[in-house]
Amino acid sequence: MRVCCTIAKEVPPAAAHKAAAAPQFEEQQQQEQEQEYGSRVINFAAGPAILPANVIKKAQSELYNWRGSGMSIMEMSHRGKEFLSVIQQAEADLRDLLKIPENYEVLFLQGGATTQFSAIPLNLCTSDDTADFIVTGSWGDKAFKEAQKYCKGKVVWTGKAEKYSSIPNQSELNVTVGAKYLHICANETIHGVEYKDYPSTGNDTLLVADMSSNFCSKPVDVSKFGLIYAGAQKNIGPAGVTIVIVRKDLIGKAQPSTPIMMDYKIHSENRSLYNTPPCFAIYMCGLVFGDLLSQGGLEAIERKNVEKAELLYDAIDASEGFYKCPVEKNVRSLMNVPFTMATPEMEAQFIKEASAQGMVQLKGHRSVGGIRASIYNAMPRAGVERLVAHMKAFQARHI
Amino acid sequence: MRVCCTIAKEVPPAAAHKAAAAPQFEEQQQQEQEQEYGSRVINFAAGPAILPANVIKKAQSELYNWRGSGMSIMEMSHRGKEFLSVIQQAEADLRDLLKIPENYEVLFLQGGATTQFSAIPLNLCTSDDTADFIVTGSWGDKAFKEAQKYCKGKVVWTGKAEKYSSIPNQSELNVTVGAKYLHICANETIHGVEYKDYPSTGNDTLLVADMSSNFCSKPVDVSKFGLIYAGAQKNIGPAGVTIVIVRKDLIGKAQPSTPIMMDYKIHSENRSLYNTPPCFAIYMCGLVFGDLLSQGGLEAIERKNVEKAELLYDAIDASEGFYKCPVEKNVRSLMNVPFTMATPEMEAQFIKEASAQGMVQLKGHRSVGGIRASIYNAMPRAGVERLVAHMKAFQARHI
Repeated sequence: MRVCCTIAKEVPPAAAHKAAAAPQFEEQQQQEQEQEYGSRVINFAAGPAILPANVIKKAQSELYNWRGSGMSIMEMSHRGKEFLSVIQQAEADLRDLLKIPENYEVLFLQGGATTQFSAIPLNLCTSDDTADFIVTGSWGDKAFKEAQKYCKGKVVWTGKAEKYSSIPNQSELNVTVGAKYLHICANETIHGVEYKDYPSTGNDTLLVADMSSNFCSKPVDVSKFGLIYAGAQKNIGPAGVTIVIVRKDLIGKAQPSTPIMMDYKIHSENRSLYNTPPCFAIYMCGLVFGDLLSQGGLEAIERKNVEKAELLYDAIDASEGFYKCPVEKNVRSLMNVPFTMATPEMEAQFIKEASAQGMVQLKGHRSVGGIRASIYNAMPRAGVERLVAHMKAFQARHI
Repeated sequence: MRVCCTIAKEVPPAAAHKAAAAPQFEEQQQQEQEQEYGSRVINFAAGPAILPANVIKKAQSELYNWRGSGMSIMEMSHRGKEFLSVIQQAEADLRDLLKIPENYEVLFLQGGATTQFSAIPLNLCTSDDTADFIVTGSWGDKAFKEAQKYCKGKVVWTGKAEKYSSIPNQSELNVTVGAKYLHICANETIHGVEYKDYPSTGNDTLLVADMSSNFCSKPVDVSKFGLIYAGAQKNIGPAGVTIVIVRKDLIGKAQPSTPIMMDYKIHSENRSLYNTPPCFAIYMCGLVFGDLLSQGGLEAIERKNVEKAELLYDAIDASEGFYKCPVEKNVRSLMNVPFTMATPEMEAQFIKEASAQGMVQLKGHRSVGGIRASIYNAMPRAGVERLVAHMKAFQARHI
């Protein structure tokens, strides 16, 4: 912390303020956490992933008897006033966080982003319509492949040849005139590439984004999108609930063969209660939304995320090639930080030693290998600092 | 309890044993529950519904730090050894409980029974195949309507004209020769009618059953069925996970337009881990399965359920028409007991007074009105006894 503050004195006032204030806050937060929440590991999992410790404590405290109801939140009718208050507050808080315009519906669904890979073309396209896909990683690729069942899917750019390490400029896109939508994956969890600006589309083409792994990590101008979707289990809750934010005028045009549970109209008309929703997962998301608001909303969250990511990327870049991040600097993810070392053996040793120090789930995705540190909203700065300290110590022992 | 034991002495030895042993056990259970688990209401909800108090206590105790892992069960990779041990144990225990043959797959899916209304015809039929439906209530009707999108659905019997109060004999069924499957709803949650014996089908026709609201309430000969499915939130866990038990040779023939998340082949090949499953809900089901085994398995559970249901139906039938159950006696549900009174006003008063005594969620489904007491596995006998006492006292005040 001393080093950090010394440097801060030499940088411009605004940045200095940020650098000086943040460590104090984080230091305090870390101390509080260690006192109150000891026995926890530092969890770098890509998802299901770390949740705020205070949120889990809260859920634990009321799991047996929810707010004097004499029941667990898991045991209540989804149509009763208790659960209705939970889902309505969760939606209100999410609307507040993302400043979701009135002409957008918020749906709490099941089945993960993968279910939306089918539902989106089924709801937005006829079988003759074209949907464009920018493929910046595995998830965008899966979304494209599934859409081909229900419309004319077209890849307008792919980063596959460069192992998904970049995001195209607008000029590189060969978009289809009249395409119904352009699909992007806002943050590729496996490859660690994240959009900083979103592509423009023609007037008749909607922008659709899978935001599963950076949802609520920063402000987003929802009005630029026709539809945003996100599995909860990265940044806002446990696995089992998927959020869909969709412009209201797009609802009600599903293909006739659409399964009833994939028809947005059904869910919109029934306020996500057509059948029994995943009540506990929605409740957990609501607790997380409340926590994000209490931290100052998404502007404040983004500042913390930028600081955490800078710490880690700076350590990689300062390692003189000992650690390498394959992603182009301008599109590096704030959430998922992949890096490699000289050999798989060395990476395995790094992960083993990290684990011995309580830093877990650092292994890269089985499809790409290497190391991946996922540093979602709930990862405290102190967790990243410990990882950076391990990186420096490990490097010192191996050169 | 005294009355109960006195009566027991006058009935045949086997029944006497049952009647004498059960109250002792239940009395002890009730005492333990009141000591250990005070502050809980008696929860007659139809689903999401009551869960075993000891299971919720267990989940609460390890919610923050699952078995020394330093993480919540909600924060773990679904591919890590910790969660794999959870889902594998849950499956093994369910196989043990239901004696599921080796040639059946067990899948943990999302989206509720309603998702299966689409998935079943998509997986089992071509669009030219016929599927027969016996409609004994609202859920069977919904299953039929959805199936018509994907095959030739045909109603071979419906109880609609009698407001779904019975189940047909084999001779009443006008089944289709060569139908791909015959669909039944084993227990209609809203109407309270339950199959005691299952219909026979021709050699080429599979029997398919929605067992959402009586799953694991009694033994079932799985080998009689092509497919059994059940949303968890009635009898075995929280909302958000659906169990599908399907004969292995039926997997792999999905229609080309089947959404990837509805293709049983995908889930079978990936052991329910194609994408992130609803980990917490699966964990909870696993705890419930373990609890059922520790109680002696489904034979023991069925005995308790029969006793609880008899208590309640006997009270209704002994009321000289003050309380009326619309369901034919031979198919009354062990799980959902609907009854009516002379006027809706009187029913409302009954529910209000019950609530004041800690008995909640007794209101009938909005589509049928009246009163409904759901007495799933986790409802202690003492809860039913209190309801019966309220019924008698209420009647005494109103005649």
